[in-house]
Amino acid sequence: MIPERLKQLRAEMEKRNMDVYLVPTADCHESEYVGAHFKARQFITGFTGSAGTAVITRTEAGLWTDGRYFIQAAAQLKDSTVTLYRDGEEGVPSVTEFIEDRLPEGGVLGFDGTVINSRLGKKLEEIAEKKGGSVYTKEDLINGIWTDRPPLSAEPVWILDVKYAGESRTEKIARVRTAMKKAGADTHIMTDLADICWLFNIRGNDASHFPIVLSFAVLTMNEARLYVQEQALSDEVRRSLCEDGVSVYPYASVYEYGASLQAGNTVLLDEGSVNYNIRRSIPEGIKVIAAHNPARDMKAVKNETELANLRAAHVKDGVAFTKFMYWLKKNVGKIPMDEITASDYLEKCRSEQEGYLDISFDTICAYNANAAMMHYSAKPGSAAEIHPEGFLLVDSGGHYLEGSTDITRTMALGPIPQEWKFHFTTVLRSMLNLSAAKFLYGSTGLTLDILARGPLWDLNLDYKCGTGHGVGYLLNIHEGPNSFRWRNAPGREAGAVLEEGMVTTDEPGVYMEGSHGIRTENELICRKAGKNEYGQFMEFEHLTYAPIDLDAVDPSYLTAKEKQLLNEYHQMVYRTIAPYLTEEEAAWLAEYTRPVA
Amino acid sequence: MIPERLKQLRAEMEKRNMDVYLVPTADCHESEYVGAHFKARQFITGFTGSAGTAVITRTEAGLWTDGRYFIQAAAQLKDSTVTLYRDGEEGVPSVTEFIEDRLPEGGVLGFDGTVINSRLGKKLEEIAEKKGGSVYTKEDLINGIWTDRPPLSAEPVWILDVKYAGESRTEKIARVRTAMKKAGADTHIMTDLADICWLFNIRGNDASHFPIVLSFAVLTMNEARLYVQEQALSDEVRRSLCEDGVSVYPYASVYEYGASLQAGNTVLLDEGSVNYNIRRSIPEGIKVIAAHNPARDMKAVKNETELANLRAAHVKDGVAFTKFMYWLKKNVGKIPMDEITASDYLEKCRSEQEGYLDISFDTICAYNANAAMMHYSAKPGSAAEIHPEGFLLVDSGGHYLEGSTDITRTMALGPIPQEWKFHFTTVLRSMLNLSAAKFLYGSTGLTLDILARGPLWDLNLDYKCGTGHGVGYLLNIHEGPNSFRWRNAPGREAGAVLEEGMVTTDEPGVYMEGSHGIRTENELICRKAGKNEYGQFMEFEHLTYAPIDLDAVDPSYLTAKEKQLLNEYHQMVYRTIAPYLTEEEAAWLAEYTRPVA
Repeated sequence: MIPERLKQLRAEMEKRNMDVYLVPTADCHESEYVGAHFKARQFITGFTGSAGTAVITRTEAGLWTDGRYFIQAAAQLKDSTVTLYRDGEEGVPSVTEFIEDRLPEGGVLGFDGTVINSRLGKKLEEIAEKKGGSVYTKEDLINGIWTDRPPLSAEPVWILDVKYAGESRTEKIARVRTAMKKAGADTHIMTDLADICWLFNIRGNDASHFPIVLSFAVLTMNEARLYVQEQALSDEVRRSLCEDGVSVYPYASVYEYGASLQAGNTVLLDEGSVNYNIRRSIPEGIKVIAAHNPARDMKAVKNETELANLRAAHVKDGVAFTKFMYWLKKNVGKIPMDEITASDYLEKCRSEQEGYLDISFDTICAYNANAAMMHYSAKPGSAAEIHPEGFLLVDSGGHYLEGSTDITRTMALGPIPQEWKFHFTTVLRSMLNLSAAKFLYGSTGLTLDILARGPLWDLNLDYKCGTGHGVGYLLNIHEGPNSFRWRNAPGREAGAVLEEGMVTTDEPGVYMEGSHGIRTENELICRKAGKNEYGQFMEFEHLTYAPIDLDAVDPSYLTAKEKQLLNEYHQMVYRTIAPYLTEEEAAWLAEYTRPVA
Repeated sequence: MIPERLKQLRAEMEKRNMDVYLVPTADCHESEYVGAHFKARQFITGFTGSAGTAVITRTEAGLWTDGRYFIQAAAQLKDSTVTLYRDGEEGVPSVTEFIEDRLPEGGVLGFDGTVINSRLGKKLEEIAEKKGGSVYTKEDLINGIWTDRPPLSAEPVWILDVKYAGESRTEKIARVRTAMKKAGADTHIMTDLADICWLFNIRGNDASHFPIVLSFAVLTMNEARLYVQEQALSDEVRRSLCEDGVSVYPYASVYEYGASLQAGNTVLLDEGSVNYNIRRSIPEGIKVIAAHNPARDMKAVKNETELANLRAAHVKDGVAFTKFMYWLKKNVGKIPMDEITASDYLEKCRSEQEGYLDISFDTICAYNANAAMMHYSAKPGSAAEIHPEGFLLVDSGGHYLEGSTDITRTMALGPIPQEWKFHFTTVLRSMLNLSAAKFLYGSTGLTLDILARGPLWDLNLDYKCGTGHGVGYLLNIHEGPNSFRWRNAPGREAGAVLEEGMVTTDEPGVYMEGSHGIRTENELICRKAGKNEYGQFMEFEHLTYAPIDLDAVDPSYLTAKEKQLLNEYHQMVYRTIAPYLTEEEAAWLAEYTRPVA
C-alpha cells in the first residue's frame, strides 16, 4: 500500500519537476496532535505515531521520529520502502541535513506552506537557495492522491465558564495587550490553537482528544479577531464573543490579514508556530517581533481557581483509576481480558465520574514486552491477552470540566522476576526523588531532571525522552514551556523557570526491548516553600492520587527517606480517595497503601 | 583615603566634562587575576576581592561584586562612601542598568578602552548613544591620580617542556588552524593569556600566582605572531619560538595589527575577551567571526600526559596537605598559631615537594566565623588566633611542574557543636554524591549540579556560587568552559558539555555568617564509563588525595551508599599517600581514613 502511494506521489513530483517533498506531522497551527484531515504523514508512510517527519525523493523515502517511537516505527515501516531515521542518535542526519544532501544543484524542494512553520520554511528556502534551486509551496501534493481524505473538522464551539477558567476572556486579553505593549508591538497574530482557546475561554473538538477549535486570532490594541469556521459557532457562542468585543471572521481569511497592515505597525508572532504562508503574507517593511505568544507562558501558570478545579478533577480520576486497579487485580486470570478490553473498562470507570468529557489522549495499555514501546497503542485484532503474571503498563488520562489528567501506573498481575521488581522500585525512587525536590526559584527542569534520571543512570539505563511535560487545562496534554529534561535538545529552547502554579508530569521509566516496560507518572504542582536570605525556595505538591503497586516494590532497595516519601504519599492517597469507594474497594486500597518498612 | 581618591578622580572627570566613569577589575586581557599594575578598581574603592566593578558618578560611587564577596566587601567598603551592590540579588540593578539610569541626557561615559572587553564596550556605547551622549575611552583616569602605581610586569618567560604539556606548540597551532578553517576564518586574534600560554607552551610570572606572560597573539594560516615585552625573553626562549616559526613583536604593537588586514580577510576573535581598543582597530568592512578561542576548549580537555602529570602533582599535594593536617591536629593549643602561621606551615610542606613552583592562588585559611566569608584572606595584624576548638577552613593549592592543584578541607580543632557536625556531614554528602555521578555524554554542569546542592537545598541552605570550576594546568586556577552551576547566570553562557579529560572542582559549602564556614573540595577528572544502546556513559575520578576530617563527621547522617563512597575514598587516599609519610604520620592517616559504619 505504502509503496503504491509513494509511486503516485513521485508521479506528482515528477509532473512539477520536484526533487524532494517534505511531509511534516502538522496542521496549519503547528499542533502536536492533528485532526484526521491532517494525517498526511501517516498516509504516506504508514507510521501512526504522534511525531515524525517524512521526506520523499525520486528514489528514497525517509521517516524521522524520536526515541519514544523507535521500536514502533521500525515495526510499522517494515516492507514500506521507507527508511527509519532515529532522531538524535549518533551519526543520524537531521531532516534538513538529509534534504541538503539529497537536493540536487538547481533542484526543487516542495512542501505545503500552510503546514510548515515560518522558521522551518525559511530554513528550507535557504537550503534551496544554497543549491541554486527553489521551493514550491503552493500545493499539498498528498491531496491529489488521498482520494478519501476526511474533511476539515468543524465541531461545535463551547464556552468554558469562568468558574472553570478562573479568569474572564476580557481579563486575559488585557493581560496579553499589556505584554504586547511591553514587547513594543501593536498587533499580535496567534495561530497556536491551545493559546487561542485559552485566551477566549472557548473549547471545541477538532482534533482527537484535544478539545480545541480550528482557528486563528489577531489582537490589536482595540480589536480582537477570531478566525473560525462559522458553522462551528452557535448563536449563543457568537453572542458571548460579541459581548466581549471579539469579532468573528472566516477561518481562511486570516491569509488576507497581512495585506491590511500599515507601515508603522509592529507585529508580534511566534516564528515557530505561525505557518509559512501567513508569515509570507506580511508585506516586507512591516516590523515583526519574533517571540513566543505571551499566552503560552500565561496559560502554563494555573490560577488558584484552575488549581482547585484540577485537584477536584484528579480526585475523580484517582477514584476511577483505583476502581480500575481493584477490578484488574481481582479479575485477571478469572475473566478473559486483553489490552483493549482492560483499557475500555478504565474508560468506563472515568466516564462514570461527574463532569467527565473524554479521555485526554489515546490510552497506552501495554502488557509485558509491548510496554517497552513507549507510545504503544493496542490495535483491535492484535491486542495482547492479559494473564495473571507480569506487568501491565497503563498511561491514560481524562478531560473533565475541572481540567485534564495524565497518569501512568504499572501493575504486577501475578508473579514477576526479581529484576523486574528491582527496575520497578528504581523507577519509583526516581519518581519520588523528583517529587520531593526542594529548590531555589530560578531552577528549570534542567536543574532537577537528574533527581529522577540519576537512579537509572547509576544502572547504565536511561529513558529516551524527557522526564516530564507541562499539562494543559482541557487543552493539549503536552504543554510548554515547563518540562523536565537532562539537556536542551538541539533546536529546542532552554527549559523554562519553574513558576508557582505550573503543573508538570514526573514520569521516569525503564524500557527493556522484548521483555518489559515500566513507567510511574504523577503530576506535580509547583508551589512556593520558604523564603530566606538564599532566595525563594520552591517545592512540589502531588496532584495525582492513585496507589503505586506495592506488589512490585521491594522495600530493601529503598532508603529510609524514600520509604517515608512512599508511605506519606500512600497515606494521602488513601485519605483522599477512600471516601468515594465501596467498602470492599476501600479495604483493598487500605492494603495497597499500607506503610512499607 | 578612598574618599580623597574619589575626590581627585571626580576632579579629573570634571576637567573632561565626564559624568560617569567605570573601573573594572581587568587587565588588557580580561584576566580573572590581574597583576599589581592593573589593580585600579582596588585602588579606587579599597575592596581587595578578585572580582568587582566600580562605577563613579559626580555624586555617587558603587561597587558590584558577587556572592563570594558580599561579607568581605561590606566590611572593606565601610567609611569609603562607596555603596555595595550585591550582583544577582533581587532588586539590585546591574552595572549597565545603573549606568543607564545615572548617565544624564547628552552625558559623557568614560572608561579605559584597553581594559574593557569589546562586547561590554559596545554595550556601553549603545547606552551612551541612547542618552544622546558619548563615550570617552582614550585615557585611564586612575593613572593620573595613582602616583606610586607599579609598572607593567615583565618577568622572564620560560618554556613548559612537552613532557609536561603532552603536545608540542606546532601540533597545537596546527589544531587551532584546523578549527579556524572550520569556522571560515583566515586570521585569529588571541588576547586571553591562558590560551596564549597554552598554545605556545610558555609560562611566566606576570600576575600573582597566575604564571602567565603578558602577551597577545595573532595566528594566520602561515604566520604565528607573539606580541610580548621583549625584555622578558631570553635568547634560549627566543630561539625555541623561532625554530617553531613563531615571530616575536613588541607587546603594544598589537594595536597596529588591525590596520594591516586586507579586504577579504576574516578574523576570528572572542568579543568577550578581546579589548575594546583592539576591536576598534579593525577597519570597518573586515569580516569578524565572534566566537570563543578554539584554544579555550582544547586546553580544558587535558591529554593523557597532562592527566598522568596531574595525578603525580596531586600525590605530592596530598602528601603536603596530610603532613600539614597531622601537624595542625597535633599542635593546636600546644604552640601558638594563627591563620597566617598555619597557612605558612602548609606552604612550607608544599615547598618541600619536588617540582613545586608556587602556591596556585592566595590561600584562604579561615577560623570559625571568618570562614563564613567565602574568599576571606587573613591580613597580618588581624589574623585570628587558632585554638583547640571549632573549625579551620583551608582552601589552597600549589603549582608544580606537573600541574596545578586546588583543594579545600575544613578541620575540627577540638569540640564542635552538633549542628556544625550536621552541616559538615551534609557538605560531605554533597561532595561525595556529585563525585559519584554516572551520567550520559552530553550532560553539562547544569545537569549535575543539584547532586551537590540538593542536600543543602533540602535544609533551606545554599552557597552563593557555583559548585565547581575547571582547573588550569599551570595557568588560571579557575578555567572555563566546564563548571558545575545550578542555572545559567544572566549574561553567562550555558554550561559546557563535560568531556573526557576535563578537570573540575567539586566544592559545596555551608556559610553561616558570624558563626562558621565549611567547604570540602576535591578535583574530579571526567572519564568515559560504559557505552551501550543509551549512549556513552561518563563518570568522575577523584584527583585529590587527602583525608576528610572524620572528627567532624557524624555517620548517622550518611546513607549506606554515602558511607561506602567515603570509605572507598579514604582507602584510596591511604594507599596513595601513606608511602610518602613518616611512620607516625602514616599511623595517624590510617586512623583518619578508617572506615565508618
